[in-house]
Amino acid sequence: MNDRFAPTPKPPYYAVIFSNQLSENPNGYDQMADKMLEMAQGRSGFLGAESTRDETGFGITVSYWRDETSIADWKADGAHMAAQRFGISDWYDHYHLRVAKVERAYSGPEGRTA
Amino acid sequence: MNDRFAPTPKPPYYAVIFSNQLSENPNGYDQMADKMLEMAQGRSGFLGAESTRDETGFGITVSYWRDETSIADWKADGAHMAAQRFGISDWYDHYHLRVAKVERAYSGPEGRTA
Repeated sequence: MNDRFAPTPKPPYYAVIFSNQLSENPNGYDQMADKMLEMAQGRSGFLGAESTRDETGFGITVSYWRDETSIADWKADGAHMAAQRFGISDWYDHYHLRVAKVERAYSGPEGRTA
Repeated sequence: MNDRFAPTPKPPYYAVIFSNQLSENPNGYDQMADKMLEMAQGRSGFLGAESTRDETGFGITVSYWRDETSIADWKADGAHMAAQRFGISDWYDHYHLRVAKVERAYSGPEGRTA
């Protein structure tokens, strides 16, 4: 296991699934994404995040939260709201955001012999 | 919007969040992943999937399902179970799998002028 995986607790908890297609020239995106992750990590209720993106700019970030209140508080954060506006105006060609309650979780491979 | 996004209906529905680190030499993985997606698409209750992976081999696939029964049926499918065994023995250095109920969903950017 490496640090790309979020060390989430036993369910239930919440997941925010953010799938997105970056625009061709998302100026300033990387710096803002790093800053937003750093800020999220300081929030009460933040449990971790997993994120990846391929060479076409299609990415998925899943952030994990203790409860709906912590998600709502982060959504309403002033700096985060400014970043959301940049995302809409400049960075994302398209995105889907889904809020889901994690009911069950597994990890592995436990059966691995190597 | 491009076809990397799953055309999911109005919530509620279910998401299976599968984050995984591929091993260095996942022989046969791509072909099996393509086959499994094709088979999943033929299952009752399958709503779509979103998937991406970066150059380090860290990937996230989120598949969307109508209900828990359709997830359980697919998990127990014979060919899929064989693929799961290959994944554990050969392909994944590590994975997390989370089953979550999607309660709310948004997409955008609606405010885009370009």
